[in-house]
Amino acid sequence: MDDLLAGNARYAERFTGGDLPAPPARHLAVVTCMDTRLDVYALLGLKLGDAHVIRNAGGRVTDDVLRSLIVSIEVLGTTAVAVVQHTDCGMTKTTEEGLRELVRVRRGADPHDVRFLTIDDQPETIRADVALLQASPFLPSDLDVRGFLYDVKTGRLVQI
Amino acid sequence: MDDLLAGNARYAERFTGGDLPAPPARHLAVVTCMDTRLDVYALLGLKLGDAHVIRNAGGRVTDDVLRSLIVSIEVLGTTAVAVVQHTDCGMTKTTEEGLRELVRVRRGADPHDVRFLTIDDQPETIRADVALLQASPFLPSDLDVRGFLYDVKTGRLVQI
Repeated sequence: MDDLLAGNARYAERFTGGDLPAPPARHLAVVTCMDTRLDVYALLGLKLGDAHVIRNAGGRVTDDVLRSLIVSIEVLGTTAVAVVQHTDCGMTKTTEEGLRELVRVRRGADPHDVRFLTIDDQPETIRADVALLQASPFLPSDLDVRGFLYDVKTGRLVQI
Repeated sequence: MDDLLAGNARYAERFTGGDLPAPPARHLAVVTCMDTRLDVYALLGLKLGDAHVIRNAGGRVTDDVLRSLIVSIEVLGTTAVAVVQHTDCGMTKTTEEGLRELVRVRRGADPHDVRFLTIDDQPETIRADVALLQASPFLPSDLDVRGFLYDVKTGRLVQI
C-alpha cells in the first residue's frame, strides 16, 4: 500500500492535467465492471476528461449506479450511458449461494441482506440492466442508453 | 455513442492483453470517484491487471461497494483496499435537498428513497468511509484499508 504514495509521487512530478474541467466532454457515463483487465478509456477510444466511469462487480445497474448517474446527469450534463459488461467475468463463475457460503464460512457472519447480482446469461443481463435505466422515473426519458459486451481475450466490443 | 465502436475497433486491432489473468496482481481494490479527471492506475503508479477499480459518485462506501469488495476478496484474492476521494468533487458542491429538488423539477418524480451521499467535510468523509469498511462483519478483520485524498490540480495524493 505504501507503494501507492511512491507511485503517485512519480506521477505528480510530471502531472500536467490540472486544467481539465469536471463535466464529461463527451456528455457520457460508462457503467462497467471492476475487472483488472479493463482499460476503460482506451478500449472505448476515449481520453481522460471525456466520460464519467462507474464501476462495480459485474458492471451491474444498482441503486448506487442510479445515484451516481443522477449526479452525472443533473449536475454535470451527461446525456448518454454505456453499460459495458465483459466475457470471463467473475460474476458468471459463482452463485448467490456460493458467495454467501464463502462469507459465512470464512467470516462467521451471514450476509443475508446482500444480493450479489451474479450473472447467468451475459447478453440477457446486459439487456435487463439497460432496461432498468430506461425505466427509471429519476432519469431523463430521452437518455441514450446502450449495452455492450467486451471480449477480454480479443479486445473487441459488440453492442447487445 | 457510435464513436465508441469505432474507437474500440482501433483498440482491438493492436490489442495484446488477452493473456492477463482476472485476479488483481497486487491483491488490491481501489474505491474511487467516477470523476472524468482520475487516471486511476496512473495516479497510483499501477498498471493494468494490478487492481480492481470500483467507482461511483464521490468514491463513497455504499452497499454496492461492499458487495463488490466481497467478490474481490472472496473470489479473487484481494487483501487491501484504498479509498481515494478527491478535491473539487461535484459531491462537495451540492446537497441532498438540492439534488432531490433537481430531479423533482426536471423529471417530475421525487427520489425520496435515494440518499445521494453528498460531502461536507472531505477528510472526515474519507475517515468515515474507511471506518465503515473496517467495521463490516462481512469483510476480513485483517483487511488493510486506507484512505487517501487526491488533488486534481496538482496530481498529488495524501494519506488521510
